[in-house]
Amino acid sequence: MKLSILFFVVLTSLNILIYAEDGYRLWLRYDLIMDQSILQTYSKSINGLTSDENSATMKVASNELQTGLRGLLGKSLQINLTLDEDGTIVLNTDKKSSLTKFCISEDEFNGINEEGFIIKTATYEGKKVFIIYGKKGVGVLYGVFHFLRLLQTQKSIDNLSIVSSPRIKLRLLNHWDNLDRTVERGYAGFSIWDWHKLPDYIDPRYIDYARANASIGINGTVLTNVNSNSVVLTTQYLAKVKALADIFRPYGIKTFLTARFSAPIEIGGLKTADPFDNEVRTWWKEKVKEIYSYVPDFGGFLVKANSEGQPGPNDYGRNHDDGANMLAEALQLLGGVVMWRAFVYSNENPEDRAKQAFNEFKPLDGKFLKNVFIQVKNGAIDFQPREPFHPLFGAMPKTPLMMEFQITQEYLGQATSLAFLAPLFKECLDSDTYSRGKGSTVAKIIDGSLENHPISGIAGVANIGNDRNWTGHIFGQANWFAFGRLAWDYGLTSEEIANEWIRMTFTNDLNSVNKISSMMLSSRETIVNYMTPLGLHHIMGWDHHYGPAPWIKDKHRADWTSVYYHKADSIGLGFDRTKTGSDAVSQYQPEVVNMFSSLETCPEDYLLWFHHVNWNSKMNSSRSLWEELCFRYYQGEESVGEMVSWWESLQNYIDEERFEHVKMLLNIQHKEAKWWRDACVLYFQTFSKQQIPAGYEKSNKSLEYYESLRFPYAPGIRPTW
Amino acid sequence: MKLSILFFVVLTSLNILIYAEDGYRLWLRYDLIMDQSILQTYSKSINGLTSDENSATMKVASNELQTGLRGLLGKSLQINLTLDEDGTIVLNTDKKSSLTKFCISEDEFNGINEEGFIIKTATYEGKKVFIIYGKKGVGVLYGVFHFLRLLQTQKSIDNLSIVSSPRIKLRLLNHWDNLDRTVERGYAGFSIWDWHKLPDYIDPRYIDYARANASIGINGTVLTNVNSNSVVLTTQYLAKVKALADIFRPYGIKTFLTARFSAPIEIGGLKTADPFDNEVRTWWKEKVKEIYSYVPDFGGFLVKANSEGQPGPNDYGRNHDDGANMLAEALQLLGGVVMWRAFVYSNENPEDRAKQAFNEFKPLDGKFLKNVFIQVKNGAIDFQPREPFHPLFGAMPKTPLMMEFQITQEYLGQATSLAFLAPLFKECLDSDTYSRGKGSTVAKIIDGSLENHPISGIAGVANIGNDRNWTGHIFGQANWFAFGRLAWDYGLTSEEIANEWIRMTFTNDLNSVNKISSMMLSSRETIVNYMTPLGLHHIMGWDHHYGPAPWIKDKHRADWTSVYYHKADSIGLGFDRTKTGSDAVSQYQPEVVNMFSSLETCPEDYLLWFHHVNWNSKMNSSRSLWEELCFRYYQGEESVGEMVSWWESLQNYIDEERFEHVKMLLNIQHKEAKWWRDACVLYFQTFSKQQIPAGYEKSNKSLEYYESLRFPYAPGIRPTW
Repeated sequence: MKLSILFFVVLTSLNILIYAEDGYRLWLRYDLIMDQSILQTYSKSINGLTSDENSATMKVASNELQTGLRGLLGKSLQINLTLDEDGTIVLNTDKKSSLTKFCISEDEFNGINEEGFIIKTATYEGKKVFIIYGKKGVGVLYGVFHFLRLLQTQKSIDNLSIVSSPRIKLRLLNHWDNLDRTVERGYAGFSIWDWHKLPDYIDPRYIDYARANASIGINGTVLTNVNSNSVVLTTQYLAKVKALADIFRPYGIKTFLTARFSAPIEIGGLKTADPFDNEVRTWWKEKVKEIYSYVPDFGGFLVKANSEGQPGPNDYGRNHDDGANMLAEALQLLGGVVMWRAFVYSNENPEDRAKQAFNEFKPLDGKFLKNVFIQVKNGAIDFQPREPFHPLFGAMPKTPLMMEFQITQEYLGQATSLAFLAPLFKECLDSDTYSRGKGSTVAKIIDGSLENHPISGIAGVANIGNDRNWTGHIFGQANWFAFGRLAWDYGLTSEEIANEWIRMTFTNDLNSVNKISSMMLSSRETIVNYMTPLGLHHIMGWDHHYGPAPWIKDKHRADWTSVYYHKADSIGLGFDRTKTGSDAVSQYQPEVVNMFSSLETCPEDYLLWFHHVNWNSKMNSSRSLWEELCFRYYQGEESVGEMVSWWESLQNYIDEERFEHVKMLLNIQHKEAKWWRDACVLYFQTFSKQQIPAGYEKSNKSLEYYESLRFPYAPGIRPTW
Repeated sequence: MKLSILFFVVLTSLNILIYAEDGYRLWLRYDLIMDQSILQTYSKSINGLTSDENSATMKVASNELQTGLRGLLGKSLQINLTLDEDGTIVLNTDKKSSLTKFCISEDEFNGINEEGFIIKTATYEGKKVFIIYGKKGVGVLYGVFHFLRLLQTQKSIDNLSIVSSPRIKLRLLNHWDNLDRTVERGYAGFSIWDWHKLPDYIDPRYIDYARANASIGINGTVLTNVNSNSVVLTTQYLAKVKALADIFRPYGIKTFLTARFSAPIEIGGLKTADPFDNEVRTWWKEKVKEIYSYVPDFGGFLVKANSEGQPGPNDYGRNHDDGANMLAEALQLLGGVVMWRAFVYSNENPEDRAKQAFNEFKPLDGKFLKNVFIQVKNGAIDFQPREPFHPLFGAMPKTPLMMEFQITQEYLGQATSLAFLAPLFKECLDSDTYSRGKGSTVAKIIDGSLENHPISGIAGVANIGNDRNWTGHIFGQANWFAFGRLAWDYGLTSEEIANEWIRMTFTNDLNSVNKISSMMLSSRETIVNYMTPLGLHHIMGWDHHYGPAPWIKDKHRADWTSVYYHKADSIGLGFDRTKTGSDAVSQYQPEVVNMFSSLETCPEDYLLWFHHVNWNSKMNSSRSLWEELCFRYYQGEESVGEMVSWWESLQNYIDEERFEHVKMLLNIQHKEAKWWRDACVLYFQTFSKQQIPAGYEKSNKSLEYYESLRFPYAPGIRPTW
């Protein structure tokens, strides 16, 4: 009878397991390993745990390891003080302990930085041990997550010798979350920060957020939107910020805020926010002190100033360095940084928008205090499906530049599209700026190594919301994961990252891993094809950026219209950014200028970014531009169809809930791809005056139909009542 | 080895179970019954299942029963065609089957209506059977949920003879959900309707929403806010509405929408929405036909017209009946109803706000088409912690009046307070209007029995959002549950409902049930005490209604200020609604007028609602009004302190996640209760000029401090950017 009761429990519980496949657990799934031989191998190897639980972080590390092993191996390990068991895991920050010295060489010790970790297997006093060492607790925590990842991805743990450190110092999420819980460019519900109930109500989700970030090495978070609200700097809200910072701290995560430049007026009661005004300077110093009284390890401010209507130093005839340095001065003694965004452009300025940030910031190189970053988007326009790297990379050698990627898919299908962004991130990081000759990649600028900057940073605009699965589309989780993994080590390949994520999130079944990996790795190129092939950009729906709208024109800002960017006319298509046009290309180093300037050497991926090309020009495929454009749009749509089939073939290998979730979303993406294809081809046809090549399915809707579509409540924008 | 693996699974799975105690499952928890003797008794009794799965609803019913039994008993029952097993559950809608005829008498058949059910145990051809019969599938579905509730609450199932029908025909939730997913007066996150992804993405939550509602007999839902948006009536959105309606249909739930009176202009391109305009009338007829082409069982429209800025027939010099009848005419052939809200009042009208709805609607009695309800809030002001019943109840005998309760706790502490509302609902339903002599309760008006109306209805403004636990505060679930249970049978006591909910949601441990029940049953009175004792009303924070603000005055609408309602002055406190004042009391029947008009007979609970009372008047307690006021405020706060202790004593009986959730919220409520107490007592003291009685803890903050508090991002209001 007892056994049958037990079976009932198992049955019931398995039921619950199936029920709970809602994606909440992200890649931190610690379900029992189902492969019996692998399970037994691990189980035999791992039998004990010791830890010098000398900090909150070390406690978090051992707790995570215990939770992980209890799940994966079904084994509850208590913390012992001595090495009683063969196969003990040792969590340790004490370089001087005899065990540590025995296991780890001086070279290895020197091979890691303050956040790094070393994982080694050794036989010590006749017993096998796994040591997970870090100079600080956070290194051990990262090591624990790495070790668990080995088990989750079913790697061998027999002879481990892993020495790993993050290559970039600040690895941040930027939340564009408003205090009313709307999220600008958020497609996964609303903000996970429930400001109203803070500080007294601690949503367990905050802890899982910290765990998830720590598991991929993210060590800081900017809680609030760059389109900022000074209310977050009031005492009332700082108490709430403190509650979050206290939760994040043990996980090695520092808390940052956006600073609204006009805060001294709005909440300080001053008449000006002029950075040269002494009262203003004093106000910021006092405010920063107050923040540190709540959050002793406060990270600093992210600032969007004089951009898209935000206040800034220009309002007082001052420059960006004046504003940034004022804040930096207030922060520097307390250890904080300023991340000042370079995303500035003005509709009043007749210059090509793509050139304006460079023109405004390059002259300021060398004028910033040491604790100022200039935060630069990967490209000069705005997180398009494909952009060439931003010309500021390599152009400000005296200034630490921080990378700003967008994890949330504002322009890549939002939460209804599968777009794995690791290839996009890497494309930028691997780009060669030639600023110090060949090999001066964007990555080496960002990590500080090219110019020997003592600080370095990378930020990703979060795709996280209060949707149960965090990111709306479960494959959006892979982009959060990829951002963290690349921030830690940009040398990882997209394949490696996809492989890890799939195994941790879905399955270790090799055939399934390969299929899902193929879907992911081709997905971004697919989206480029059906949205903005050949270097097209910014031709999406007005304001909400949902769906195609190459016809957008005659708005109050020319630089927010589509025609500004594609320049379609009877002759051809594309934005001439060579010498005969805006000459934006000249902002790059000569090697890059040469490559992009010539129609022969400009990669077709960037063709219409830099050139206005005749409809009949021959492409590499020997198709004309018009034919190639059609080909790409149709190919993009077709590739989504293939993704749908691939996914459907996985039905028996994925739990029903997540299978259906992805299936519905892929079907939506397929609809959207057709919509993009037909709307864009019909629209550009009005300029090319050429037939859609034979063999292509014709749109069953007119261009007018597509132009008539309205999405007044598309997510991610501030509602307009 | 196999056994130990099994134990691992159990361990791991139990882990998951604990992990998942986030309240998502509501009261529909089907965990294995832990009491072995009860489990065995049930398991022995139940061994088979037959069902004439002749409809989607019957399939849903048998599926729910299978899921429930698999969980509760760990028993997987397949559907058999014959009665092979002793202890078979028979789901049946066929009155003519010999088994049904054998089990159920003609009287019993006649004792239920179209939605009712009969559950009986019998011995048929030597075998024990449980029959769950309904005239229609939905009755069987309700019966299945009832049967499962018996198991969940561990009742005997030996000799069942249950005949049950809903007493009110339409039992609706009203969602005040906007298309951008904000929820007016929503405190549980944002709307569960993800309009953007509909119709192609079906959130599994929609199904669980339908299950939860069906389990308590709710048979309709109004998807959109009464402050309405005509976009929901566009073709684009009707396709989305259809997707939801298709999900809800098998669960017996009809879909309704709010109709914006100006829709013919906004989305129809007409120049007017005048109900006497033929184009307008035709437009609505065509629109209704279109809606029915998407949703063949569409329920009808809920309308807020000429109220708080909403458009309506008055804009064209027409009256409410003109507007309502126009819509009713369009709906009547297709089976839909109009629910026209009586919640109208105007700041321009110098009359007491409490009188205005009555004055405007009573003269219209008899002028509405047969498919029009007038939907009346429980009280004449607005969902206060305590209000006397609305004087319209009993005043419009020719018109079916629909009750509107507010489940969401706009004025009862929102989602940070535990307030069990069954006593509030029942207080109103049990009130005697005397409209047809003694015993003419509000309930009998609502259920149609007093005036023999063929239609009847009750609505609850939903407290549901996309918070994981649906209602923000897990005890908010009890109010959703209580609304449904009372809509089915208002004869249930608050104790019975609390008992069911606690056992289904938390535990069957008797001591715990009793403690939680005590907390719940006293909770509403506690809130009345620390917010609005003795008949005070509408003295809360401006606009967001969060926290105390009796000092609100001089706003653009006098009837949205606090001083309008409490009338505190040097002489006393309270709104004189007797003959010497606004004479609102005269809107009731003479018996009620007499009771409320006299200081001797007016219950103290309503004292300051109807009377301006001298600060030194003696109360029943023989305390003066001022002393009694202080007593109530301090008693209210103290009672929250007791709730905190009671809950803490349950630590070992409640899972950690839900225990901590409630504990944090009770601590917040305790803070808020002190805040209410101190702010109100300090404020009223400026009028009474008397000391706070000895022995009471003094506020450590000044009145000015409380008046200075601002909550710009309090939830539940449209953000003001």
